[in-house]
Amino acid sequence: MTANITQLFGIELPIIQAPMAGVQGSALAAAVSNAGGLGSIPAAMLDADGLRREIEAFRAQCGRPFNVNFFCHTNPPADREREAAWLRTLAPFYDELGVAPAAAKTPARAPFDEAFAAVVEELRPAVVSFHFGLPEDALLDRVRNTGAKILSSATTIEEALWLEARGVDAVIAQGLEAGGHRGMFLTADLTTQLGIFALLPQMIDAVRVPVIAAGGIADARGVAAALRLGAAGVQIGTAYLLCTEATTSAVHRKALSGEGARHTAVTNIFTGRPARGIVNRFMRDLGPIRDDVPPFPHAATAFAPLRAAAEAAGSSDFSPLWAGQNASRCREISAAELTRELADQ
Amino acid sequence: MTANITQLFGIELPIIQAPMAGVQGSALAAAVSNAGGLGSIPAAMLDADGLRREIEAFRAQCGRPFNVNFFCHTNPPADREREAAWLRTLAPFYDELGVAPAAAKTPARAPFDEAFAAVVEELRPAVVSFHFGLPEDALLDRVRNTGAKILSSATTIEEALWLEARGVDAVIAQGLEAGGHRGMFLTADLTTQLGIFALLPQMIDAVRVPVIAAGGIADARGVAAALRLGAAGVQIGTAYLLCTEATTSAVHRKALSGEGARHTAVTNIFTGRPARGIVNRFMRDLGPIRDDVPPFPHAATAFAPLRAAAEAAGSSDFSPLWAGQNASRCREISAAELTRELADQ
Repeated sequence: MTANITQLFGIELPIIQAPMAGVQGSALAAAVSNAGGLGSIPAAMLDADGLRREIEAFRAQCGRPFNVNFFCHTNPPADREREAAWLRTLAPFYDELGVAPAAAKTPARAPFDEAFAAVVEELRPAVVSFHFGLPEDALLDRVRNTGAKILSSATTIEEALWLEARGVDAVIAQGLEAGGHRGMFLTADLTTQLGIFALLPQMIDAVRVPVIAAGGIADARGVAAALRLGAAGVQIGTAYLLCTEATTSAVHRKALSGEGARHTAVTNIFTGRPARGIVNRFMRDLGPIRDDVPPFPHAATAFAPLRAAAEAAGSSDFSPLWAGQNASRCREISAAELTRELADQ
Repeated sequence: MTANITQLFGIELPIIQAPMAGVQGSALAAAVSNAGGLGSIPAAMLDADGLRREIEAFRAQCGRPFNVNFFCHTNPPADREREAAWLRTLAPFYDELGVAPAAAKTPARAPFDEAFAAVVEELRPAVVSFHFGLPEDALLDRVRNTGAKILSSATTIEEALWLEARGVDAVIAQGLEAGGHRGMFLTADLTTQLGIFALLPQMIDAVRVPVIAAGGIADARGVAAALRLGAAGVQIGTAYLLCTEATTSAVHRKALSGEGARHTAVTNIFTGRPARGIVNRFMRDLGPIRDDVPPFPHAATAFAPLRAAAEAAGSSDFSPLWAGQNASRCREISAAELTRELADQ
């Protein structure tokens, strides 16, 4: 079995709180790190100044190691024709809710760049994780030179081997069960995505770096089973969504607490990339996976006015309700209590 | 934790060899039962006389408990128009291989019926398992009155509750990782299908009967992890496909042994029902899931001549290569050795 992440990161419990942009910040991360796990600050929806403030807020609450997570997609050029066609597809929804399509604007999700690298160099988090592969070598070297441990998500054996070849300290095996964006970056074919029970042992056998299990793990039984399968630790997101320290919206919390939380699907219609969320009206009416969605992250512009109008009326019909396949097991509990329970095997 | 299946079935090891019609018979089942697991005889591609012979052959090799598995679909009436359209879709393949479409014939897969019930009453297997739900009450009662333990597959919590309400002795939680036909019978929506890591704990919490884990389990680590998650036992299919006692075809064995075994997908184009197999040319060219396939089991007629011609030339391009997401871990080994290894935690 590979080295446990408790040694790798200098933490007490083999649990990483998954970074979840939009539903949590430093408060959740600090609660988890204070409880002995590794809290994560998601940077994907922040700019460099916002990230600096979040790290400072974390450090005001907790002196222990933490992780900062970055997306590392490339922003494709805008495709006006495709975006116009997508707006026409959504026109009946705009009409129904009485809102106007949003003007195209800066993508809400920013990839790792020079400015973020400067914050990492300045504030030196113990761990830096990436999603959608890795940044270009020069940027990655700047992170490595700070002494930060580097992680990234792999959804296939090929991705794990690619990450290992570029010198990551551990890979996160993201099972098909996981909520939020699929980290897939060498393939766009969803049939390549594996359940964690199949993915984890294959990945452990394929690479020499530690493999962290993510996806579908929601309680102490799951943690113990993942470690039994050979994981060096686990990354858990969905189970934290109802925690008091999370900033999960009211409609998202309501959806997570209902029977409907049992039914999630991978969808690309919210952002342009496949991500798992609770099935809602937007996904049902349009179908969860479509070829005509603008590319990530531009697709996120189009549904924003629909979401705002629906949420103002208390409806989650047009909100991305990111959640994994174990969403129905979420509980309202403090993050510290949850972290300790998860590790209580 | 629920009662272990070793007590329930009077066997030594908590391992059921998954019934796999078309790739195994009594020889594999007897080897597994002799090793202390529960061997399974698949009846879906047999008639009553064929099943009787298989059970007699098993008993000539092994005096221990075994399972007989039946499909319990209803055969829909033939839809000539739909079948003709499907043949037109396949026409380029017929042309390429120089074969003629098969004339419509009796479906190759037969559901549980009076004749099968009579064989169960006569030969009294210790365990009878069903796929695609359960037969009608009168037929099920005939099985129950023999004293056989009754199992069926559940792919959702709703299906598990439905089976429990009808008095099954245990449910098989079929994770999305599993090879072969999905047992789904209350829904046709593939987004409802869960990875075993998410499905198993939810199902264990939802029902009182023992829950057996199936899908993606390929080695002793997997068995131990499934038991750690609370499973009462495991059902393992794919790992047995290369065993000497299996009747897996040469092209199927070759596919299982290659790099391509890593890439499986759920497809309905072979039989009309979703089933997981190694991605091959037929799946790639047509797309794995289509709306225009004739209903199960009638779709199986159309590709049969393509398969026969391709296999005669040593090609698996048109063969259903049923396998789970851990297919790349199959080894050529005796079933007895594999069964003992799987239980060696």
